[in-house]
Amino acid sequence: MESKNVLVGIIMGSDSDLPVLKDAAKILEEFGIGFEITIVSAHRTPQRMFDYAKKAEERGLEVIIAGAGGAAHLPGMVAAITNLPVIGVPVKTSALNGLDSLLSIVQMPGGIPVATVAINNAKNAGILAAHILGIKYPEIRKKIADYKQAMKAEVEKKAEKLESMGYEDFLNSSK
Amino acid sequence: MESKNVLVGIIMGSDSDLPVLKDAAKILEEFGIGFEITIVSAHRTPQRMFDYAKKAEERGLEVIIAGAGGAAHLPGMVAAITNLPVIGVPVKTSALNGLDSLLSIVQMPGGIPVATVAINNAKNAGILAAHILGIKYPEIRKKIADYKQAMKAEVEKKAEKLESMGYEDFLNSSK
Amino acid sequence: MESKNVLVGIIMGSDSDLPVLKDAAKILEEFGIGFEITIVSAHRTPQRMFDYAKKAEERGLEVIIAGAGGAAHLPGMVAAITNLPVIGVPVKTSALNGLDSLLSIVQMPGGIPVATVAINNAKNAGILAAHILGIKYPEIRKKIADYKQAMKAEVEKKAEKLESMGYEDFLNSSK
Amino acid sequence: MESKNVLVGIIMGSDSDLPVLKDAAKILEEFGIGFEITIVSAHRTPQRMFDYAKKAEERGLEVIIAGAGGAAHLPGMVAAITNLPVIGVPVKTSALNGLDSLLSIVQMPGGIPVATVAINNAKNAGILAAHILGIKYPEIRKKIADYKQAMKAEVEKKAEKLESMGYEDFLNSSK
Amino acid sequence: MESKNVLVGIIMGSDSDLPVLKDAAKILEEFGIGFEITIVSAHRTPQRMFDYAKKAEERGLEVIIAGAGGAAHLPGMVAAITNLPVIGVPVKTSALNGLDSLLSIVQMPGGIPVATVAINNAKNAGILAAHILGIKYPEIRKKIADYKQAMKAEVEKKAEKLESMGYEDFLNSSK
Amino acid sequence: MESKNVLVGIIMGSDSDLPVLKDAAKILEEFGIGFEITIVSAHRTPQRMFDYAKKAEERGLEVIIAGAGGAAHLPGMVAAITNLPVIGVPVKTSALNGLDSLLSIVQMPGGIPVATVAINNAKNAGILAAHILGIKYPEIRKKIADYKQAMKAEVEKKAEKLESMGYEDFLNSSK
Amino acid sequence: MESKNVLVGIIMGSDSDLPVLKDAAKILEEFGIGFEITIVSAHRTPQRMFDYAKKAEERGLEVIIAGAGGAAHLPGMVAAITNLPVIGVPVKTSALNGLDSLLSIVQMPGGIPVATVAINNAKNAGILAAHILGIKYPEIRKKIADYKQAMKAEVEKKAEKLESMGYEDFLNSSK
Amino acid sequence: MESKNVLVGIIMGSDSDLPVLKDAAKILEEFGIGFEITIVSAHRTPQRMFDYAKKAEERGLEVIIAGAGGAAHLPGMVAAITNLPVIGVPVKTSALNGLDSLLSIVQMPGGIPVATVAINNAKNAGILAAHILGIKYPEIRKKIADYKQAMKAEVEKKAEKLESMGYEDFLNSSK
Repeated sequence: MESKNVLVGIIMGSDSDLPVLKDAAKILEEFGIGFEITIVSAHRTPQRMFDYAKKAEERGLEVIIAGAGGAAHLPGMVAAITNLPVIGVPVKTSALNGLDSLLSIVQMPGGIPVATVAINNAKNAGILAAHILGIKYPEIRKKIADYKQAMKAEVEKKAEKLESMGYEDFLNSSK
Repeated sequence: MESKNVLVGIIMGSDSDLPVLKDAAKILEEFGIGFEITIVSAHRTPQRMFDYAKKAEERGLEVIIAGAGGAAHLPGMVAAITNLPVIGVPVKTSALNGLDSLLSIVQMPGGIPVATVAINNAKNAGILAAHILGIKYPEIRKKIADYKQAMKAEVEKKAEKLESMGYEDFLNSSK
Repeated sequence: MESKNVLVGIIMGSDSDLPVLKDAAKILEEFGIGFEITIVSAHRTPQRMFDYAKKAEERGLEVIIAGAGGAAHLPGMVAAITNLPVIGVPVKTSALNGLDSLLSIVQMPGGIPVATVAINNAKNAGILAAHILGIKYPEIRKKIADYKQAMKAEVEKKAEKLESMGYEDFLNSSK
Repeated sequence: MESKNVLVGIIMGSDSDLPVLKDAAKILEEFGIGFEITIVSAHRTPQRMFDYAKKAEERGLEVIIAGAGGAAHLPGMVAAITNLPVIGVPVKTSALNGLDSLLSIVQMPGGIPVATVAINNAKNAGILAAHILGIKYPEIRKKIADYKQAMKAEVEKKAEKLESMGYEDFLNSSK
Repeated sequence: MESKNVLVGIIMGSDSDLPVLKDAAKILEEFGIGFEITIVSAHRTPQRMFDYAKKAEERGLEVIIAGAGGAAHLPGMVAAITNLPVIGVPVKTSALNGLDSLLSIVQMPGGIPVATVAINNAKNAGILAAHILGIKYPEIRKKIADYKQAMKAEVEKKAEKLESMGYEDFLNSSK
Repeated sequence: MESKNVLVGIIMGSDSDLPVLKDAAKILEEFGIGFEITIVSAHRTPQRMFDYAKKAEERGLEVIIAGAGGAAHLPGMVAAITNLPVIGVPVKTSALNGLDSLLSIVQMPGGIPVATVAINNAKNAGILAAHILGIKYPEIRKKIADYKQAMKAEVEKKAEKLESMGYEDFLNSSK
Repeated sequence: MESKNVLVGIIMGSDSDLPVLKDAAKILEEFGIGFEITIVSAHRTPQRMFDYAKKAEERGLEVIIAGAGGAAHLPGMVAAITNLPVIGVPVKTSALNGLDSLLSIVQMPGGIPVATVAINNAKNAGILAAHILGIKYPEIRKKIADYKQAMKAEVEKKAEKLESMGYEDFLNSSK
Repeated sequence: MESKNVLVGIIMGSDSDLPVLKDAAKILEEFGIGFEITIVSAHRTPQRMFDYAKKAEERGLEVIIAGAGGAAHLPGMVAAITNLPVIGVPVKTSALNGLDSLLSIVQMPGGIPVATVAINNAKNAGILAAHILGIKYPEIRKKIADYKQAMKAEVEKKAEKLESMGYEDFLNSSK
């Protein structure tokens, strides 16, 4: 694999979802995985959605990350059309806090799964894409291992700091 | 209007939804409104869904009733494609009792409304279709008025029976 | 149809709902559909509500949009009295975020449907009114088609911008 | 007070609610409080509901118990029209288990309270009516005191039985 | 009745609930109904709660309004001990927005009702107390009628203003 | 410790809760921990509840397990009065499935904790009591270790059976 | 790839979850994908869970499907330890219908995603595993395409039957 | 007991939970109970979590307080490994307000209880630890009694102030 290849397509229903979905882009950059990012609305551009999903495989994409809020149909509709794995990111909504988005994405009927992550957790969508790609690209799996190692080190470092400083100084120092 | 004209299209994601959606058909028959009924799955037959929605207007349909359960995308996707009014029926689900269906149908984003009725209440979807058609067809509005009159009479008759029998005999008599 | 005719009545339980319901008025203006807007409280002015609903049809209204929050009885009660189609807008509430409003409006019993839209989404109530009126007034259906076209164009334009700028510059540019 | 006077009006939206609402009647009988019971649907007989609420006071009723399910508007609408205290009984529904009924009844706006009891707990509605009447009729308050005494005695008797038999025999004996 | 008599006891679990419960006091003042207001915690002062509930009747109180949040036991415990009608006010909580308070108050078991009002709606608790007292004190019922009249007049005045100004000017004028 | 000593008090609001609470008794028997079991209703026998909680410590109890459903006040009220650790068991309810019980028990205010376990999981309440007693009685902690060992062995045995039989035969064999 | 290779590990917290998880096994068999299936409890056999997750990759597994109910920790804990993609199946529970399972599985913190499918939908977990494996094994992707084709054909066949028979005969024929 | 002994271990999944968990530390300090506080992530440092839980007992800890948010696995996993009582603190989350944390912690399967307290209520976790330790250390139980006394006195003092000042002055004085 050359990291220049675009392996992951990140799509969202509206540019207002970008502050959430950008986290998927960032983590893929960190992992050196090629991606593209654009706006595809199931409701406002159904034909564009259809075309995007239909051509994704032949264009060389291997995973699609789709984020949407409310009656969030984008991930499920894309999954209905493509044969690629589709990761769904429920975007938090102002009234129901993303519970509507979550249920609209995860409760897919038999036959058409969407790999759903936590509300607003586009970062995890990116990491899950890496997990999936890791079954084909050993260098990506290696990066996940490194990433986990770094998370572990960070927790240990903070734990050490908390233990040595005490909780009050720790809290004051992070203000 | 001739009642033979097919004005309402009733669609559902799966034949397992038919025991619910048949109530829309029944009430339309009662009102003498022409309808068609078929299965269109947003997830398993996305192209069929697309085609159905796209041609609905030119085929002479004036209202679409769409029922679905879980991550219920059918009503919203059809509404995205057609310019006809779309009525959504959230079908009750085994795990979340249709709360997932309800939120997936009603919480549509700005621009693409679905006229949502109560969980499993396909009868009301049929009546709402009659309300909508009633703005164009006076004889349908007349039938709604008659229907309301009949509901009222039925309540009054039962009330009278309850009042004269007393609640215990009434309960026994309806066993 | 002359656009001067008042076809849609927009009512709300309290002037505190106006910041939400005004969106129905705005989109109807955009579509050139005549409307009236006023306050009708099911709870504080039940007789006024009764009279409004009873006379709506003879006054020439063809669709009623009713918004309310909490134990939101206005849409359902108006639907009980009139034969016109009634669109319900659940207004977001401070404690339960509008889940109470949504359930109070959508879960109507058999016989009396309310065409419910998403929480706080009065804009969609206006568009749904246009969908409904569109079955009678071809020029309104034409406007819906134009509106959808404009939404599509806007998504495509933003998508293009995002694709050409990259997500970071896009985010910075919209700050 | 003569117990022959009808002090409490029990109303429900449909005779299908009678198996729940009958518990209010039973406890009022037990307390010797005169009541009437009938069907009044806010949605199917709005005028009847209006008239019932309007005349309740002059007809000598002092408390109204109103039960309804789903988008349960009956208690709130009656409360809007009468000056009597209104007790609302949320009836359990098949899809949302009465959460819809509860929120539709309890979340009333400022100015128009409904005294809400637990889902399906019409017995408590009857007891609450007795509490309310008890502020005016000392003999009713006396009966509440007796009723509480009896409940206490029943618990103590069962506790004694459980303590002396042991839990296994107790369970077997109540099969 | 002399309005100097203390007829209503308003209690709350913590002084942090006072900004909510004060609304009950205000409306009772407006209605000229004598009340007392204090802090009684079921959890932190169980004996005080017991004593308060036990002596309420002999001290001449006729209605108790009890507000509490979270695992809100105060209204139900007071109702268990006194024979007076108890009105429960679920106080909004920071995590679950008062859904916990509402269910803890309204879902009382058979035998011990609490007359529950909407989340944070202590004003309605005061009005409900007036409704209850109104069955004994005609002058209080008269005040409820006046209050409803005033609410109606206020809605009509605002409606008139909205209709004459138009929604945009109305919104601007209330900024 | 002699296992004859009564260390745990199991109480419930109604004998209808016994089919749930008996599981606490059973596991305590299995662990050889002395317990008593009786009915104490916060709502129907508030004085009995008060007395039970007040005397629990001097009577030698060291842990109290309290189960209740709906507006489940028993665990929290007992915790308010005693200084012993109180374990709360939310009993499943017919309307809200025990969500009301859970919130009424777990959402206690600052100062008065209830150690809450899963809905209907009285067995875990018994085990938690053992965990708590284990900090004082080494032989009880030893029994927990044995119990965990046995659970582990059972899982391993079933896993082995499933692996060797295959899932279809395993399912058939357990019919 | 030889289909004999075990590529997917299906694990569940208890054999009581097998009636749900067997659907993952069945669909993998249908797709000719090698799998293993066993019981691994995060809570009752934490060390076994640790070992399973740690060795999964070196044993040649490429995807793990983990199902659990209630406080469902198995999928998330396995995901914390392995670098393979983990698919989580929330198992329906008796009290909260699987809402607890769903939230416990999907709401993972940043860094450790679980690809969550619908409540009880182990079939979709198997299909998602196929989607994931399809990025590496073209013959598996081919099978997904065939599977989708078959689903589509089945819908079309049923639709045709419904359209030709009419809804009443269709319903009767499927009784 | 010497208060210098570390009896309670407070752990949390991330230092972002410290502003919540610090309240457990504070109350333990107030009670003079020795504790330690550190970061242990079930997901990012599973081995560290394993080791912590495994060695807690031999290191002399007697109670563990574990706080976590979202798919909050830390309390349950620690409870699976240790034989000590484990208290779980559900941390409020941005999307679902801690309902996810609560269900992930409290809904533990049979065999492995977690003593769950209210969302974000780490103070109560500390007090519950004191209750538990109080069965072994009489001086700690004494401190609980004193603490309850102080809470009672504070309520009484505030009640007195409220009663003497009146609610309006009380509210003004606390601004």
